[in-house]
Amino acid sequence: MKTYQKRDFPVGDVRRFIEPGPIVLVSSAYKGERNIMTMGWHMVMEFVPSLIGCYIWTENHSFDMIRKSRECVINIPTVDMAETVVGIGNTTGGEMDKFKTFNLTPQKAKKVKAPLIGECYANLECKLVDSSLIKKYSLFVFEVVKAHAPQRPKYPKTIHYRGDGQFMIAGDALNLRRKFRPEMLP
Amino acid sequence: MKTYQKRDFPVGDVRRFIEPGPIVLVSSAYKGERNIMTMGWHMVMEFVPSLIGCYIWTENHSFDMIRKSRECVINIPTVDMAETVVGIGNTTGGEMDKFKTFNLTPQKAKKVKAPLIGECYANLECKLVDSSLIKKYSLFVFEVVKAHAPQRPKYPKTIHYRGDGQFMIAGDALNLRRKFRPEMLP
Repeated sequence: MKTYQKRDFPVGDVRRFIEPGPIVLVSSAYKGERNIMTMGWHMVMEFVPSLIGCYIWTENHSFDMIRKSRECVINIPTVDMAETVVGIGNTTGGEMDKFKTFNLTPQKAKKVKAPLIGECYANLECKLVDSSLIKKYSLFVFEVVKAHAPQRPKYPKTIHYRGDGQFMIAGDALNLRRKFRPEMLP
Repeated sequence: MKTYQKRDFPVGDVRRFIEPGPIVLVSSAYKGERNIMTMGWHMVMEFVPSLIGCYIWTENHSFDMIRKSRECVINIPTVDMAETVVGIGNTTGGEMDKFKTFNLTPQKAKKVKAPLIGECYANLECKLVDSSLIKKYSLFVFEVVKAHAPQRPKYPKTIHYRGDGQFMIAGDALNLRRKFRPEMLP
């Protein structure tokens, strides 16, 4: 697997990567430990501030690491990483360092202590800004405080989980910009 | 556009359609009026009960209709409906009946008053079960109380919004079931 040459990406524009609904990898760090989990239940909640709502199951080893550190990185993997994504979901960080097990490159983030995953197409550094919905819904509300993405390809070949071991691979692009009323576009 | 022959679909399995992140059409009814809006910000929140979190902008004509009726139908359109989806997003139900304007077939739902959209691949009848997050986050928590989907095709060719008038069309299926630990599958 390769790593990407990335540059800063505007945090208010990360809906480009999140709204289409890919499976993502969430990296975290707490008290000298680091971990990675897979996550499929997430949504854009606001442009400014750039908010993302995430369901994190209480049984995940990452749950307490993220709740206590109040930080994470949301990493966007592509189809070449599909088996790694499943492997990360199959295993628990309580028993291994997943960066080592899955031969992934931890990279230093700018605004959080959690590491970026170099092999992922994009990396969104996140701070937990609302923990009040964790108890009732396991819902973490994060603000994206820094984002990294490559210039090319413009659109990543992400994978989207359907349950039951089945994924959908991101297909063709469809440009309908000309059909939108101008005020509906940013 | 065609309508589908649908049958009951288990409400606990609707993540198959929602988790991959398609743009959806939300239909509603209130005091003799009916409407349709497009929605891209949503997430699965639970299997049982079958919960879906949805961001509905206060400026949408549907906002008050759904908040007051406490019901809606989440309809899953496919790529053949892409221009209709954009057209619905461009217009306001305050000025027209979108079923008529866009030549869509309203069908009677089983458990809610809002109509199903016959041309959509699947229809999820929803009840608003938590309105406490609407004020702060425009977040509606719905329970899917009845679902309808055709037997074939098994996976719909959905469209996924990236912002800026750009969509991604659902591509190839990738079956990694053999790579999952058995306890990770339902």
